[in-house]
Amino acid sequence: MLAGGTYPAMMALGLLRPAPAHAFNLNGSGAGKHIIILGAGLAGMTCAYELNKLGYRCTIIEARQRAGGRCWSIRNGSTQTEIDKPTVTARFDEDQYFNAGPSRIPHNHELTLHYCKELGVPIQVYNNVNEGAYYFAEGKGPLSNKKIKVREVHNDIRGYMSEMLAKSIDHGGLDSALTKEDAEKVIEYLKAEGGLDVDKLYKASARRGYSEMYGAGDKPGKIGEPHKLADMIHSGLMDPDFYNVAEYTYELQMTMFQAVGGMDKISSALQKKVAPFLKMGAEVTDITNLPEGVKVLYKDATGKHELTADLCICTLPLPVLSNINHNFSGDVSRAIDYIGYIPTGKIGLQFKRRFWEEDEHLYGGITHTNNDLTQIFYPSYDYLGKKGILIGYYNFNEKAQKIGALGYADREKFALEKGRLIHPQYDKEFESSFSVSWHKTKYSLGGWAVYNTDTRKNQYPALLKPDKQVYFAGEHLTYLNAWMAGAFESARSAVAALHARVSGQRLQYPAQH
Amino acid sequence: MLAGGTYPAMMALGLLRPAPAHAFNLNGSGAGKHIIILGAGLAGMTCAYELNKLGYRCTIIEARQRAGGRCWSIRNGSTQTEIDKPTVTARFDEDQYFNAGPSRIPHNHELTLHYCKELGVPIQVYNNVNEGAYYFAEGKGPLSNKKIKVREVHNDIRGYMSEMLAKSIDHGGLDSALTKEDAEKVIEYLKAEGGLDVDKLYKASARRGYSEMYGAGDKPGKIGEPHKLADMIHSGLMDPDFYNVAEYTYELQMTMFQAVGGMDKISSALQKKVAPFLKMGAEVTDITNLPEGVKVLYKDATGKHELTADLCICTLPLPVLSNINHNFSGDVSRAIDYIGYIPTGKIGLQFKRRFWEEDEHLYGGITHTNNDLTQIFYPSYDYLGKKGILIGYYNFNEKAQKIGALGYADREKFALEKGRLIHPQYDKEFESSFSVSWHKTKYSLGGWAVYNTDTRKNQYPALLKPDKQVYFAGEHLTYLNAWMAGAFESARSAVAALHARVSGQRLQYPAQH
Repeated sequence: MLAGGTYPAMMALGLLRPAPAHAFNLNGSGAGKHIIILGAGLAGMTCAYELNKLGYRCTIIEARQRAGGRCWSIRNGSTQTEIDKPTVTARFDEDQYFNAGPSRIPHNHELTLHYCKELGVPIQVYNNVNEGAYYFAEGKGPLSNKKIKVREVHNDIRGYMSEMLAKSIDHGGLDSALTKEDAEKVIEYLKAEGGLDVDKLYKASARRGYSEMYGAGDKPGKIGEPHKLADMIHSGLMDPDFYNVAEYTYELQMTMFQAVGGMDKISSALQKKVAPFLKMGAEVTDITNLPEGVKVLYKDATGKHELTADLCICTLPLPVLSNINHNFSGDVSRAIDYIGYIPTGKIGLQFKRRFWEEDEHLYGGITHTNNDLTQIFYPSYDYLGKKGILIGYYNFNEKAQKIGALGYADREKFALEKGRLIHPQYDKEFESSFSVSWHKTKYSLGGWAVYNTDTRKNQYPALLKPDKQVYFAGEHLTYLNAWMAGAFESARSAVAALHARVSGQRLQYPAQH
Repeated sequence: MLAGGTYPAMMALGLLRPAPAHAFNLNGSGAGKHIIILGAGLAGMTCAYELNKLGYRCTIIEARQRAGGRCWSIRNGSTQTEIDKPTVTARFDEDQYFNAGPSRIPHNHELTLHYCKELGVPIQVYNNVNEGAYYFAEGKGPLSNKKIKVREVHNDIRGYMSEMLAKSIDHGGLDSALTKEDAEKVIEYLKAEGGLDVDKLYKASARRGYSEMYGAGDKPGKIGEPHKLADMIHSGLMDPDFYNVAEYTYELQMTMFQAVGGMDKISSALQKKVAPFLKMGAEVTDITNLPEGVKVLYKDATGKHELTADLCICTLPLPVLSNINHNFSGDVSRAIDYIGYIPTGKIGLQFKRRFWEEDEHLYGGITHTNNDLTQIFYPSYDYLGKKGILIGYYNFNEKAQKIGALGYADREKFALEKGRLIHPQYDKEFESSFSVSWHKTKYSLGGWAVYNTDTRKNQYPALLKPDKQVYFAGEHLTYLNAWMAGAFESARSAVAALHARVSGQRLQYPAQH
């Protein structure tokens, strides 16, 4: 400590750097305590990883024969058994994969990046924004069934909106608090923003793309004709299906990342750290709070087993936990049953060649459509490579229910039929598919927790406290729903609370965080 | 050929795929012809590479002791001698580099990507758009000297503009051709686009970022207070220094790429292909069209030399060519002297640690400022790595003239003094710098050709035709000025024209292209 300085005062003066937000240095030891962790997803494995650092003895119970939970990359040989469906095995080339679960890391999710760094998992840019991808309005309006480059819609709309507003300001149509000088600045801005001409009219700009590309010699190029505003409206390109909102969202703003080689590199790196404590193929049937300690029943290939411990952290998704016997309080039990999970599904389609790159100069990013495909994701890795897997649909809610209800073969048929409207190359280049419907996937039973105002207010708080010896963790116990960061943040919160209880210390985290 | 099918008819039916735009298959042989190529930049080496495929004998004359021209990555040991300055050597860590010349490949520049693929140069995303970078208005208005996240400005402005336009449409302030139904759709769109509330007011949205990050448990997060529109105007954040225009530009729209490991991987891959024909350290002094053939005088370490050949392709930048003796026509000579080149400069600053990532969660992208730095580029590679080189300024025209006039040490001092206003970490973490001022760099003498309406109309065409036996090529002979694609496209045009003359064939390219 510098003479005379207080910590906050020195912070304010910039004399000390604040501890990085990802610091997680708890004091005290957990030696002699045994903790059962239910679920070897990111939350469960992070709990075990951090508890082990503190000296706890851990046992992780995982129903599947693989760890990682929803952090799952599909590769050749990956298998999946959905409810009421036969087991299927992915048949992809050895170097190909797609992320069936989380595929993107926002740059603001510090804890995810922190664990990537700590675990030595290299990251690369996930190219979430690509002005060269398409909007495709099936069967709607004058622009129906045309693949329209995102840049055309973005820049045409910017142009028309800027033109309208500039005119309105010009005509004194605004009773706003803008001074005359400020209004002039805004008009100058709108001319730049919209690509307007000297008369403040939008006549197209190079930003929307060229109908004839410029080049060497006498090729100045030719700028494409703008779409009519009314046409874009009537084809629904200004509807929620196509709002820019997706890429404006805080979490979806560039820079975004992914783990190099598949997002499961994160879960497999964690798995290496916790392998000694990990029981796979062990399905929990009962969780019982004892007067002191906790008892867990599970079954595996060899039969039924009982395990007792001092404390437990349960990271099972709530729809799964809902089917397990327990003696939790009424509030906890209701929360488990009431909180909703999103139906969602993805299909990976392997193609013989990267026609989206070779023929269409489309590298990563997302095509949006108003049909049940919802989105097509192009791979953000192995650019200029030979083959590739694109995500042929990624849908939610009713659309995901509808497609998830189909058999694997019919999902593939659906993805190909709708997809070829956008990419006729599908017919010739398709090789094989693998689909995952998360709400039909055993041991997951949903994509992620979705709260409404009621459940966030009335059910959520019940799970933030331990029910006697059982703590709860997972993305569902955060405001980071759907994100891997939710698993990490929640794991740390649970570990901190548990450790504060064991060590009799004041809770150091998340207050400090 | 399918029975009864004509090629265009089959194309229309989709029975044939069009030849990829990058196909460059010329017929005939150049055997027995000798071509002198002046300059071993991308254009010159591409000419030699393609001519060699056709059987020509080539000699490339390059003044420098390195090939690549402006496609130059600075690494430990790179040396530079600017006009009137001593030679300096870069002192960076072995795994560190920055691209002093081109650092970005637009996804629409097919030929650049084609050569990356053909030459086996892997590419990765250049993260040109980063909402987590800053706008920094030095000494101007209420937001003066604050580093403001790009996302705050983007989303606050979107909010206010959408609010104004929605109000104006509401009040019938537009005499536009919008029907009532269309106007309602536009208002719904503006509410989404701007993040407006139910009353169509902009009160901030999560997209602008959080003043308290959300997290696990009882941390819903707190959305930051929006900037006042008037404050943004008065601090110049709606001025051209900060316009979104940069990232809207066709060439700067995501997806953008870079060569993995430095952009010079492209030039060094080309260099390998043409090494047998490459004379380095050979400075051209005279280019003379003979009645038949061409004669080039050059000097190297061993003295003066004369070289004759059938034809010549001159890729030298025009300010360099302007100082070489020649017997070109008056039109060509005037074009060489009149066409302008941009003054531009960059400085690479190596830091002990990637504080922009570790402390500020800023991964790649660009900070914009109104001062002479103009821009700071954060590296789009080796994310989460230990050290890094950022580009401390990248400026143009007057700003580049002013900073380029300084000595190397004073440029470093300038970059550090202005940079620490944004990143106080500069003081503690800086290790070493290397600056390049292209207009003061021998054998370049400018960043790239810049045309105005007059020079494009009156001088440019003179250089598109050969002057007797001498053809001209380079980014300056395209509408792709400043881009590597200009060098590639122009090289192909020159090769095609030259080969059509030699082989007596109709010009196959660029007509076919």
